[in-house]
Amino acid sequence: MTKRPTSIKDIAREAGVSIATVSRVINGKGRYSSETEERVRKVIRELNYVQNSMAKTLKTNRSNLIGIVVPNITNEFFSQIVQHTQLALLKHGFAAFICNTNEDRELEHIQFNVLQSMNVAGLIYISGLLSLPESLMSIPTVCIDRKPIVDTMRNVSFVESDNLQGARLAMEHLVDRGCKRVACLSPEDQFSTHNIRFDAFSKRAAELGQPMDERNHLIVSRVSYQDAFDIMTDFFEKGGKIDGLFATTDWLAIGAIDAMKAKGIRVPGSVRVIGFGDISSASFRDVPLSTVRQYPEKLADASVEILLEQIKTGHTKEEHTVIPVELIQRQTT
Amino acid sequence: MTKRPTSIKDIAREAGVSIATVSRVINGKGRYSSETEERVRKVIRELNYVQNSMAKTLKTNRSNLIGIVVPNITNEFFSQIVQHTQLALLKHGFAAFICNTNEDRELEHIQFNVLQSMNVAGLIYISGLLSLPESLMSIPTVCIDRKPIVDTMRNVSFVESDNLQGARLAMEHLVDRGCKRVACLSPEDQFSTHNIRFDAFSKRAAELGQPMDERNHLIVSRVSYQDAFDIMTDFFEKGGKIDGLFATTDWLAIGAIDAMKAKGIRVPGSVRVIGFGDISSASFRDVPLSTVRQYPEKLADASVEILLEQIKTGHTKEEHTVIPVELIQRQTT
Repeated sequence: MTKRPTSIKDIAREAGVSIATVSRVINGKGRYSSETEERVRKVIRELNYVQNSMAKTLKTNRSNLIGIVVPNITNEFFSQIVQHTQLALLKHGFAAFICNTNEDRELEHIQFNVLQSMNVAGLIYISGLLSLPESLMSIPTVCIDRKPIVDTMRNVSFVESDNLQGARLAMEHLVDRGCKRVACLSPEDQFSTHNIRFDAFSKRAAELGQPMDERNHLIVSRVSYQDAFDIMTDFFEKGGKIDGLFATTDWLAIGAIDAMKAKGIRVPGSVRVIGFGDISSASFRDVPLSTVRQYPEKLADASVEILLEQIKTGHTKEEHTVIPVELIQRQTT
Repeated sequence: MTKRPTSIKDIAREAGVSIATVSRVINGKGRYSSETEERVRKVIRELNYVQNSMAKTLKTNRSNLIGIVVPNITNEFFSQIVQHTQLALLKHGFAAFICNTNEDRELEHIQFNVLQSMNVAGLIYISGLLSLPESLMSIPTVCIDRKPIVDTMRNVSFVESDNLQGARLAMEHLVDRGCKRVACLSPEDQFSTHNIRFDAFSKRAAELGQPMDERNHLIVSRVSYQDAFDIMTDFFEKGGKIDGLFATTDWLAIGAIDAMKAKGIRVPGSVRVIGFGDISSASFRDVPLSTVRQYPEKLADASVEILLEQIKTGHTKEEHTVIPVELIQRQTT
């Protein structure tokens, strides 16, 4: 077998057909017998002919691949961002190279190496754990959702939901609905999103005469239905008294509500509950959840627009875009 | 700017450093000042140096990229398969190229073109809509979940959950729990998975003396919580009487249960309900759902094993692997 890249000429010779026929088979243009097709395909398999975008990339020195790094595609919010990002990129002739990291730093590091080796033209980094690696330093990058840790002088753009305004709206809504003893349920300090939501809720609560302290700030170690269920059960068993709850994400709100149901505490009769995100499980319940709706499709579109502009102009910039959120009142408030 | 592919020598000359230094910067090996690094990176950016897996692919005539085509990554079952498949591939030194098709034939077709141009070494085709395209005919392919439409002589492998046994187990479980009038809720004929589940349930029901007919086979036009809720509401408003329900997927079961709750029909007191899949929303409910558990990680592992074996040997085969399922009894039966 030859070591240099196989050419279409080699294939035609091996298969005993014309170059035009090989080209028609490769491009699926028809006008050949099934025997001819099978023979050509067999030769292609054997010679491993490379007629692909990689060759084109080498020729034009330009990749049309965009890397998307996502912490967990089984999380509906993230998978919706990825889905819309891939679609938006395709519309502009770019293919998405999606890397799932399972919220694992080691795996995230491996994925960066894969992306580097793929020579991606740009990077969309959703809720990453790491600071961005030096190896990908020279390419335009847009972070979504979690504020990136940028420890170099590089220019990185950031697109996020209006977490601050969303949390404020949640607090104001609970007060509008008559709540006088509000609490907040959030995961342990780790990511910018939840911290911003808690801080903004807490600040607005204080302004409205219901300051937060350690008794009404319930902290789970991770975003999990079960952890929310357990901490809420414990709270009521220890005599905790509240009439309003803001959970910084919908799954926590849902776990908290089910704990209340199990304790015979009525929602919204005794406690009004509001979440954040508007995942499908928020509306697909017998008592649908009030929440602050985020727009994954808008986060995706804004990010793609910024990224492609920077790729086109060749200038990386630090842009910060905030996508508005919306309060959705359903039956838990 | 030069038109031929830029070499490491060009970069060294432009940046005024040694070839060894350029190599160290590219590979992140250290032993250079930040000024040097910045200068080298600037030249790389300017010359768009391609040191990447694509060049290696062309050299070795072999790609380490595997395409994954998935209909909807916001569906938890599919996203879990994708997640595990990507991990299993990485462990073997293969990168996954994930293509989401939004259950859209046109988009699926576009993604096939992208995959072809990427010169993927193999394909994992999850619940596809189309017959496999000629353009990807020469590469090893494993289908997961939905039975592929294979209209050529090509060899395609297929990995699926034991849908037949799962549906049988569901019927037997309802009878064990005392049900005497069972019904089945499934989406309109389209995909092999739901058809197999309905047929197997129906057959076992007949064997156990409760034959299905049009009155106790409720058909929704698509898999949707709301459609299940509506058809179930309508069923009871028209005087329908059942004491057991098998839904061919969990979201349908959840929609049906919430419709029963809204009508004051107790679950499991009056009607016992069992789903299929075991998505997280099945357990994260105040009355957790009994269901037939599928194992996305096992489907992924089996598919990767078959695919990589075929890539290694260069022989495509028609293999058919069935992954066992498990009946999970929770509180709705």
